[in-house]
Amino acid sequence: MVVRPANVDQVAAVVRVCADTGTPIVPQGGNTGLTGASQPHDDMSEIILSTSRLTEVRDLDLAGDTITVEAGVVLAEIQRIAAANNRLFPLSLGAEGSCQIGGNIATNAGGTQVLRYGNTRNLVLGLEVVLPDGQIWNGLRALRKDNTGYDLKHLFIGGEGTLGVITAAVLKLFPRPTAAETAWIGLPDPAAAVRLLSVLRSHLGDSISAFELLQRRIIDLVVEHVDGHSQPLDPVPDWHVLVEASGFGGDGALSEPFANALGAAMEDGLLTDAIIASSGQQSKRFWQMREDTADAQKHGGVGIKHDVSVPVAKVPEFIARADAALEQAYPGIRLCAFGHVGDGNMHYNPLAPENWRGESFANERESVNRIVHDIVVELGGSISAEHGIGRLRLDENELYKHHIELDLMQKIKRVIDPDLVLNPGKVMRTATR
Amino acid sequence: MVVRPANVDQVAAVVRVCADTGTPIVPQGGNTGLTGASQPHDDMSEIILSTSRLTEVRDLDLAGDTITVEAGVVLAEIQRIAAANNRLFPLSLGAEGSCQIGGNIATNAGGTQVLRYGNTRNLVLGLEVVLPDGQIWNGLRALRKDNTGYDLKHLFIGGEGTLGVITAAVLKLFPRPTAAETAWIGLPDPAAAVRLLSVLRSHLGDSISAFELLQRRIIDLVVEHVDGHSQPLDPVPDWHVLVEASGFGGDGALSEPFANALGAAMEDGLLTDAIIASSGQQSKRFWQMREDTADAQKHGGVGIKHDVSVPVAKVPEFIARADAALEQAYPGIRLCAFGHVGDGNMHYNPLAPENWRGESFANERESVNRIVHDIVVELGGSISAEHGIGRLRLDENELYKHHIELDLMQKIKRVIDPDLVLNPGKVMRTATR
Repeated sequence: MVVRPANVDQVAAVVRVCADTGTPIVPQGGNTGLTGASQPHDDMSEIILSTSRLTEVRDLDLAGDTITVEAGVVLAEIQRIAAANNRLFPLSLGAEGSCQIGGNIATNAGGTQVLRYGNTRNLVLGLEVVLPDGQIWNGLRALRKDNTGYDLKHLFIGGEGTLGVITAAVLKLFPRPTAAETAWIGLPDPAAAVRLLSVLRSHLGDSISAFELLQRRIIDLVVEHVDGHSQPLDPVPDWHVLVEASGFGGDGALSEPFANALGAAMEDGLLTDAIIASSGQQSKRFWQMREDTADAQKHGGVGIKHDVSVPVAKVPEFIARADAALEQAYPGIRLCAFGHVGDGNMHYNPLAPENWRGESFANERESVNRIVHDIVVELGGSISAEHGIGRLRLDENELYKHHIELDLMQKIKRVIDPDLVLNPGKVMRTATR
Repeated sequence: MVVRPANVDQVAAVVRVCADTGTPIVPQGGNTGLTGASQPHDDMSEIILSTSRLTEVRDLDLAGDTITVEAGVVLAEIQRIAAANNRLFPLSLGAEGSCQIGGNIATNAGGTQVLRYGNTRNLVLGLEVVLPDGQIWNGLRALRKDNTGYDLKHLFIGGEGTLGVITAAVLKLFPRPTAAETAWIGLPDPAAAVRLLSVLRSHLGDSISAFELLQRRIIDLVVEHVDGHSQPLDPVPDWHVLVEASGFGGDGALSEPFANALGAAMEDGLLTDAIIASSGQQSKRFWQMREDTADAQKHGGVGIKHDVSVPVAKVPEFIARADAALEQAYPGIRLCAFGHVGDGNMHYNPLAPENWRGESFANERESVNRIVHDIVVELGGSISAEHGIGRLRLDENELYKHHIELDLMQKIKRVIDPDLVLNPGKVMRTATR
């Protein structure tokens, strides 16, 4: 059963009935999550509580640079309202045309602008949440500073709907950058990419708003399988970086500093080739190439996906070690990595060896996960950088996370949702009711 | 009794003994807090656990822009190490020469750079915490992205030592700005200040790194009572703004955009007068004036302090209403406000009427608090923007905070520290043991 309440009071009423009757609830936004947090279990024991009718924009405060929206507002709509008012809402990700802000908050979504603006967590000032007993917590404060007790909103942000149903939020808006530069860069290896990032940041500070690393294979797949793309660089390098700087001042205000910074990096031998986009259109083409990686990957045969992060300096070691271990275990495996390297976040998605049948490689998922994630954890990294735990990473998270932390999470779940009404069996296993 | 453990294992050993013997602990850093969170109760029932010997810098990662420090490292030392490595650690506040980072984190300290860089909370990537039972939680992750469960660190940040003893932290470093501009501005009223902030941000984005509003009275006190100061502007305006922009590029890279932005604001009639600092020395003098407000205030007679925040757009309404209410209740009261208006945070510290004896005004503290804080709460604000609750605001916080939120806080306290070992009676009242 899917219930579609139209406002917070109706959400509260639904949750109260479920609490009274012991009916578990799966909160669901745009249902674009990648780890199954918004999907019910196969036994149909839960109802789905959809936030799709909670679509009101409750407030827009341009002096305070905040917008207050209900959970069902689609991310792209918030971006649009911000832009129409000469502001930026920086959260930006592939699913932005259909994902809902409530889901973005519940999963602490990442995306391409985290380097400069942080995760969704950093963009939220206040929340309205229906608690597991049906009470409404009005934490919709539009305050930049508030030290009056535990900062409860951070439990619900990234809590994947296990502690409360987010029904509305106060979000931060930012001044809309008036100058931007984009470049497509070729370089020999990930180590050069990490050093390039350092050089660019020393010249341009956090005007560097995006820094995406892409392995040759994924670009080859985009060019081969998605219409309208060609290789930006010739000869085609083994590794590509898509970098964006954004700031203020007139159009072109960043072009000289940006070119100077890239020139300095070239003198240091960090890059082999680079194209600075000469128009907004060319910049869009570069970004389209980045966005089409998800689509292109489907044409590459069976892949096993990982959404991992390590400290930025350890990205090259992670890739080298994971590549070597996988090549040893699966000769001919087609390595394929790309991601938000400015945040240490890689989508490390090796594809089946050419000579393997897809399903046999799919059967290796657990072994491949273990090889990759063991290395990630040894390097102090995370096995889910931005996609969350949901159902997909449940067992692995219990394997890797220290028992002290799992124990704290369990205690918090038990004290806030003692009857396990909200999204049971997501994020962590909880004893059945 | 004060115990001074030298490392995390010793902290854990102390906490275990206290847990076993039912001895409450007050964690204490530099003891510079303003609401008494690090001070024991008068009945001497607690021991003080000082973090002052936890002074190791455990790691500095320049590629990843992180530094890992123990809780007892003094804030200014972290700023110094960052600067020596061409980085910025942006937390900046009056007590920086003696406050310790553990205390800054436990109280989620604010300061003058929040507008651009956020509170302490936004500067922390990972924590090491000794829990109330003496277990050590190693959450020292240097990750920009990690969505593997509840983000527990946010409970300890701003938890004022009631949930755990913070022993170490991974902090974010930032590129060190290479260009900066400072201006001292005169304007007619706080409404003009809020509009000025909007204009400056639309021109310069979040290069605007500080925006401090100061009422004439506090500047008069600085000039009269602290050596080395004179009025920057003649005639002396009723309200002053100290604004700082910082960014990248060569020295002077911001001077034209900054002057243009101020010019636009002047054309809009938002400011009556302005001096752009022509040297680093003049900029330092302006900032010294801001910093000497705390000292100057002591010479103004008895004052009643408030550390409040409201949504930025409501700052003018807050000041107007609070001024009017206090002038009616206390004719001749000397209004005195200043603060981080870019964050909506005011230190609203009215002084005793000239003809009153100091102690009689001090006796009015509760009534004055009530007048000011009622207005703050009506405007959706916070009665403690950056100083925390400690002991000082305990009763008031229970008065103003919704019971749902207090109840969630109590539940979390009870489940993490069931025996009330850590800093009992701070942040909120808890039943005695």
